[in-house]
Amino acid sequence: MPTKFTVEELHAIVYKIFHKAGCKPTDADSIAEVLIAAELRGIPSHGIVRIKDYIGLYQKGRMNMQPDIKIVHESPSTALIDGDNGPGIVVAKEAMKTAIAKALSAGTGWVAVRNSNHFGIAGFYSLMAAEKDMIGIASTNANALVAPTFSTDRLLGTNPIAFAIPGKEEKPFVADFATTPIARGKLEIMEKQGKSAPEGFIQDETGKSSTDPSILKRGGAILPLGGDYEHASYKGYCMGAMVDILSAVLPGANFGPFVPPQVAYLEPKSESPGKGLGHFFGAMRLDAFRPAEEVKTYLDQWIRTFRNANSIDEKNKVRIPGEPEYEKEEKIRESGIEIIPQVWEELLKTAHSLDLKL
Amino acid sequence: MPTKFTVEELHAIVYKIFHKAGCKPTDADSIAEVLIAAELRGIPSHGIVRIKDYIGLYQKGRMNMQPDIKIVHESPSTALIDGDNGPGIVVAKEAMKTAIAKALSAGTGWVAVRNSNHFGIAGFYSLMAAEKDMIGIASTNANALVAPTFSTDRLLGTNPIAFAIPGKEEKPFVADFATTPIARGKLEIMEKQGKSAPEGFIQDETGKSSTDPSILKRGGAILPLGGDYEHASYKGYCMGAMVDILSAVLPGANFGPFVPPQVAYLEPKSESPGKGLGHFFGAMRLDAFRPAEEVKTYLDQWIRTFRNANSIDEKNKVRIPGEPEYEKEEKIRESGIEIIPQVWEELLKTAHSLDLKL
Repeated sequence: MPTKFTVEELHAIVYKIFHKAGCKPTDADSIAEVLIAAELRGIPSHGIVRIKDYIGLYQKGRMNMQPDIKIVHESPSTALIDGDNGPGIVVAKEAMKTAIAKALSAGTGWVAVRNSNHFGIAGFYSLMAAEKDMIGIASTNANALVAPTFSTDRLLGTNPIAFAIPGKEEKPFVADFATTPIARGKLEIMEKQGKSAPEGFIQDETGKSSTDPSILKRGGAILPLGGDYEHASYKGYCMGAMVDILSAVLPGANFGPFVPPQVAYLEPKSESPGKGLGHFFGAMRLDAFRPAEEVKTYLDQWIRTFRNANSIDEKNKVRIPGEPEYEKEEKIRESGIEIIPQVWEELLKTAHSLDLKL
Repeated sequence: MPTKFTVEELHAIVYKIFHKAGCKPTDADSIAEVLIAAELRGIPSHGIVRIKDYIGLYQKGRMNMQPDIKIVHESPSTALIDGDNGPGIVVAKEAMKTAIAKALSAGTGWVAVRNSNHFGIAGFYSLMAAEKDMIGIASTNANALVAPTFSTDRLLGTNPIAFAIPGKEEKPFVADFATTPIARGKLEIMEKQGKSAPEGFIQDETGKSSTDPSILKRGGAILPLGGDYEHASYKGYCMGAMVDILSAVLPGANFGPFVPPQVAYLEPKSESPGKGLGHFFGAMRLDAFRPAEEVKTYLDQWIRTFRNANSIDEKNKVRIPGEPEYEKEEKIRESGIEIIPQVWEELLKTAHSLDLKL
């Protein structure tokens, strides 16, 4: 059983699966590209492991592999896109391309998306803009797992936001983070390892602080960034809410508790005030503000000031957002992408269900 | 000695002071309006208490009360504004008006500002857009008090961000928050009361967690939202960094540690890679995405879903960002704005220094 793959090998496998499931060649290519980007950046929770979910939803008729992605409404600097329930990655790439095209003519471009699905890592789309000398912003809502401050109800997803800006000699600054102190995937790993979760991450079904990483299965919830009220969890709640409003209220996607499950084993929601899951993208040309070279040189100075700051101990220097992922990518490209046996077996099953031999 | 004022009384006093200091009538009016809005919303740390700082900087020749605020560069949806070292409130209002005007023609408007000063409460500007059926965004960088994760150095301000969107029957959702778990003003109050600060807010000059609210005077720093690395303080650091980049790197204002002090008793920085302090504003017409009435009705549904969520205890219901401030405003408008004796005495001194009798 193979455990390590080159980018090319893995790309060919992912491509085959989605092409077989009915995706256009360019779309199958996009899905492979974004899932593999997650593996390379050391975020396997958003990589190959997601294929079984995407294909599972397709096989239950809950994801459309041949979407007719449409601009529903537009202005010089904006667009509303309906993703026709297509794979989130395909819809998101198209939406970010639209934002970039708008920015080329109007200075900035802002695209709100409804009727989409899980789009992988937000950072990928923000970097599409950074490559064109633009600031890139990408966010999405997600299945509700997070309780707002003072509540026992799960009303928000981990709602990530990504922000990228290019430097001149430095690699782009890329912040890409969930608006919670911990992601669901990390809790699952703690549970498998028999570990407790640190205080301030999760609560039980009555709202009492918990350290049991399996608590989500019994009505528990993730807390917003900050943890509790005393530590300003309402600011994390504000951030998650802003992402939900931009990604769902603005375009008319399902918000908060109504976001459709992104896995096939959970039933669809009975109530749907909007259409599918939602995203929000932005692109701002640097030279719509001042010469791009000036901004990029100044960002280099910002990066170097922070990188060279005094650190508390020698082991942990101040990091520039994006840097840890660049380092992982360099290592993983060289060593190959490791797919753990459980994920590989699931992938074989998924391929088999499509009458495909890997 | 008066302790309570009506809005009109206080407005007249603030107007007099800034008019006497050389501000144009409309500018003195704006400063009074924004400082009093902070008092009404229950944020006195950004209200009348700031007058001594603004006037102090003016008297030392470090703030220009008659600025020639200029658009340096623009595109259909963007502008770069130079505030000519004017009062931040005057510059910020002009910048937000520009963002709104751009949004009227291009769908959205985005304005980056350099060469400005402390602008009061960010929420005020985001609400200017909400009144016009737009989403409003406002942010600013600020004097460096915050250490990024792993550092002993103060490299970031509390860098607030505000986001407002109007509802149909509901009042606008307004999130307005510093990207730290605590503001400097609250630490000062704890110090005066002889209280300890909770764990996870501040560190000493070696980077060790501290509960001493006076630690900032001895090389300590505020921590980013999240607190420590384990609790994802790097996400709070990312947010503060994003605000610094939009407000300073993009327009060419001073970033992070180089932000000029906003009080007269601190000397100006010896090194200035940019111009003054920076802000960033955005306005997005709702109907640049879909009919404004649809978005506003859907926001009402969002607000009611969250407001009616189950709460952990009866005392604390889930709050909608902005609601606590609306409630305070209603109360304070009725009862009058209370100015504590120390602040009133400072104000008299400030007036006296301008040869003005209040």
